[in-house]
Amino acid sequence: MSDRIFRVNMTDLSTRTEDIPDRWAGLGGRGLTSHVVAEEVPPVCHPLGPDNRLVFAPGLLSGTAAANSGRLSCGAKSPLTGTIKESNAGGMAAQMLARLGCRALIIEGKPEGDTWYCLHFSREGIEIREETELAGKGNFAVVETVAERLGKHLGVITIGQAGEMLLLAANISVKDPEGKLRSHGRGGLGAVMGSKRLKFIAIDASGCSVDLADPDCFREASRAFAKALVENPISQALGKYGTNILVNIVNEAGALPTRNFQSGQFEDHEKISGETMHDMIRERGGRVKHNCHPGCVIQCSQVFNDRKGKYLTSGFEYESIWAMGADCCVADLDLIAEADHVMDDIGIDTIETSVAFGVAMEAGGLEFGDGKGMLRILKEDVAKGTPLGRIIGCGAGHTGRAFGVTRVPVVKNQAIPAYDPRSVKGIGITYATSTMGADHTIGYTIATNLLNSGGHVDPLSKEGQVELSRNLQIATAAVDSTGMCIFVAFAGLDDEKCLPALVDMINARFGTALTLDDVMGLGRRILMTERDFNLKAGFTSAHDRLPEFFSKEPLPPHNAIWDFTGEEIDSFWDF
Amino acid sequence: MSDRIFRVNMTDLSTRTEDIPDRWAGLGGRGLTSHVVAEEVPPVCHPLGPDNRLVFAPGLLSGTAAANSGRLSCGAKSPLTGTIKESNAGGMAAQMLARLGCRALIIEGKPEGDTWYCLHFSREGIEIREETELAGKGNFAVVETVAERLGKHLGVITIGQAGEMLLLAANISVKDPEGKLRSHGRGGLGAVMGSKRLKFIAIDASGCSVDLADPDCFREASRAFAKALVENPISQALGKYGTNILVNIVNEAGALPTRNFQSGQFEDHEKISGETMHDMIRERGGRVKHNCHPGCVIQCSQVFNDRKGKYLTSGFEYESIWAMGADCCVADLDLIAEADHVMDDIGIDTIETSVAFGVAMEAGGLEFGDGKGMLRILKEDVAKGTPLGRIIGCGAGHTGRAFGVTRVPVVKNQAIPAYDPRSVKGIGITYATSTMGADHTIGYTIATNLLNSGGHVDPLSKEGQVELSRNLQIATAAVDSTGMCIFVAFAGLDDEKCLPALVDMINARFGTALTLDDVMGLGRRILMTERDFNLKAGFTSAHDRLPEFFSKEPLPPHNAIWDFTGEEIDSFWDF
Repeated sequence: MSDRIFRVNMTDLSTRTEDIPDRWAGLGGRGLTSHVVAEEVPPVCHPLGPDNRLVFAPGLLSGTAAANSGRLSCGAKSPLTGTIKESNAGGMAAQMLARLGCRALIIEGKPEGDTWYCLHFSREGIEIREETELAGKGNFAVVETVAERLGKHLGVITIGQAGEMLLLAANISVKDPEGKLRSHGRGGLGAVMGSKRLKFIAIDASGCSVDLADPDCFREASRAFAKALVENPISQALGKYGTNILVNIVNEAGALPTRNFQSGQFEDHEKISGETMHDMIRERGGRVKHNCHPGCVIQCSQVFNDRKGKYLTSGFEYESIWAMGADCCVADLDLIAEADHVMDDIGIDTIETSVAFGVAMEAGGLEFGDGKGMLRILKEDVAKGTPLGRIIGCGAGHTGRAFGVTRVPVVKNQAIPAYDPRSVKGIGITYATSTMGADHTIGYTIATNLLNSGGHVDPLSKEGQVELSRNLQIATAAVDSTGMCIFVAFAGLDDEKCLPALVDMINARFGTALTLDDVMGLGRRILMTERDFNLKAGFTSAHDRLPEFFSKEPLPPHNAIWDFTGEEIDSFWDF
Repeated sequence: MSDRIFRVNMTDLSTRTEDIPDRWAGLGGRGLTSHVVAEEVPPVCHPLGPDNRLVFAPGLLSGTAAANSGRLSCGAKSPLTGTIKESNAGGMAAQMLARLGCRALIIEGKPEGDTWYCLHFSREGIEIREETELAGKGNFAVVETVAERLGKHLGVITIGQAGEMLLLAANISVKDPEGKLRSHGRGGLGAVMGSKRLKFIAIDASGCSVDLADPDCFREASRAFAKALVENPISQALGKYGTNILVNIVNEAGALPTRNFQSGQFEDHEKISGETMHDMIRERGGRVKHNCHPGCVIQCSQVFNDRKGKYLTSGFEYESIWAMGADCCVADLDLIAEADHVMDDIGIDTIETSVAFGVAMEAGGLEFGDGKGMLRILKEDVAKGTPLGRIIGCGAGHTGRAFGVTRVPVVKNQAIPAYDPRSVKGIGITYATSTMGADHTIGYTIATNLLNSGGHVDPLSKEGQVELSRNLQIATAAVDSTGMCIFVAFAGLDDEKCLPALVDMINARFGTALTLDDVMGLGRRILMTERDFNLKAGFTSAHDRLPEFFSKEPLPPHNAIWDFTGEEIDSFWDF
């Protein structure tokens, strides 16, 4: 089917389709969500009001046979940060939307009243239906019920209770091939979906496929691309240990934020490491490798069972394990896995929520290490929207303000994830300058600072960090537009055949003649578009700063501090 | 005594005094607090961290016999708004500090550990003492205990439980001549004092007085000034009915925000009006007139007793009564008075907290009109710091975020007070452009929009509002530096002898030869200094905007909307 823009207006419950305007030609994924938000959302609007728009866009290569091309971008003005936001997720929705010819799905307006709705998207178009049964239910119930009602082959995009309650850390989840979940985790996009009274979107792409301008060229490029991914040693390690291989690496580097960012090493790191997790999975009959969408050749996901061999969670990421583990000092992978599952079901960002717990622990509301207490609060308070649940569920910054805490690791009100910027200075530049608030994926300098991918930049020195972050942020903005998983970056940085093959696939898909420079130019254009939105929303260089405790408190074991001047940080934008 | 700057460093528990530097000569009150904060506080620092400074400064005429000159300015970076903040209060502290030769008291740093401290300020200097007995106690207990320990004649500046718990709506209270309280209400300055672990400041000015450069000229000017105040009809009405005379006036104008700003008229306005209150006070043996500091000739305060004739509250202001009354639909002055007393004791801003209740009612946590529920939550939750209490106690914006409410009446995160900007457009310009977040006192256009003081500007038209707000904001910044109560403005606007007499008093006090133009120039300088701080803290014209619901929802009965463009608002700064 030829690609179009699909719009759903939740104010008058109407739908329509549009041709893709010339200015959006060549845009997909984050490139498209960010351009739509920048053009159509008033920068100073209330993020939960009718003027905000929730935009889903599969990547340029989603729906094709290209390896790892199943990422779905979701964009809006973030209720957590007030900035523009793109958060991308795996799962099956991107491929299905692309096959339905949907370059972007734009949810506009907001209905009056308390009715919940859902969307049914198929080759016949989009139908808006009232939804009563699933209101108040968790994400797993949504996925199961949609499968019962309409069949297991449908894609599902859903919010849990957190999104319904408009909690600022609410995420949006996407069904994976086995009925489990992947998430648009960061920035509270689940609250935007909740504000539009939309509980879920069911997607039926049966009988549809993506047209290729040059199938032969595509097949050849696709093969070269997949080969580069499969042969990369970091890809292989990710397949074996998952992203959680990072616990020991980051701990060794003294950059594993521990006890609400009071130390860079966690004495119980072995208990929560990827190696330990790998052994537990094998012992309990789980699965070490698992993909979040068909065609992924890295398979960093896994199926983690409990002691009795019963499914507990999947897509069990380093950042989630770090946040509950080292940051809250919970040295028990089973407890962490159960909390991960609960947060997936409630539909709330594991990073933001767990960092909020760390801040609450600092305030004394809960002891560091009290994983059972966390689990109880997740189930009894966050899921039910008690006042305590709403404080925690609105994120680390909100929790810090409620409890008067000054050591609050956020930038633009979004929680800083699993790498301390004092000991890995490149990632600090990314946190500070990101158009999305603190975010590791948007310019993952860990690759070069700690994993020696794309060379090496000393993590403890200021030298070269601004340039490293800038180059990676530009490249990532481009990659986030293709539908590719961020983990293609390792092969992209280290295998000279990888990125040309990626560009060849785009050209073979659309009949274009882009060069790698063109694609990097797209990355620059995306960053500048996002920044322009933020400037109009009232953000300035004063917001491109880390909290003051990073400059005042040396981080053990290196006793490193954050020592960039404002001018040095601001030079990031000298494109 | 010759005037000096007094500094208290709470990090190392040291004190010192300094001569007044030339650049601060001629500054007092808000002029001085804002200059100190702008020069000494890093604009992006954490407001509850060691780099923030809490500055108290009596006005230029405080401590003299000038009528109504007992206002004390308190300044800091606000934890509620993130902007610079000045909040001034009556009570006896300004006059006592001035007599002790204290032009400004600057509290710096922050101690380690959980110890609470207090200051004893006398002609021997400042002593820092540990305080154990009063930690966790309300403001009235502090005032009573200081009187028992040291005598009734001392001045007291104190925080209640809200300030200790660092709640963002916490205020700082000042003892009045009868041991009751006046407050530095807005912007969470009580949390700054709490962050410095300072429970109270006791002030003993016995044996001290202010020197006058020209006592004869001062006496003459002082007489003319007091005459202008006493003869002004609005002053007289304030003395009879208190500020609460405004309920009926503002309701009649259709600008009394009702039911969380859903209407401009409250059907039960008569039950909470100044006229009703006046009759209740007379029936119950209270006092219609009452001053908050010696020398006040307007006496807008009152003593409000309960049904049994027992003291309930004083300083019972229109804005507090509006917030609990019309905004939360509680049509019971006794309940409102009791809640006012409880908030005074806890030490929390009645405007911010009550508007937060209105937002929580909108979210459904409590029914509109449930005054008993409000009272229960104040006593059981806010005073004790439960999660619900911390949500409400951190203000309207925080409450709106916690509960996902979009109709949240705040500017720069500070609650909009008792005049709807759709029906009184001049005050909307003040809310939007104020350097302090939404604030009515900083440019009180109600005087001219509704009370015909200083002419008349049609409240429903955009015509002339920007200029009106600008002129009043400049004049107010100057007046806030003199120690004068804002209510001198009515005589200042309508009696041509009033302001020249004010300038004559300043000249007679200091031996200067200032003109009225010089004093207005000071007002401009103060505003620009405050704005410069805010720009460095990351505020832009995008923050000089009212929430979008004011532009989308017509306000009954006029069905007025907020219709200023961004450019029109920004022209405020064309000085």
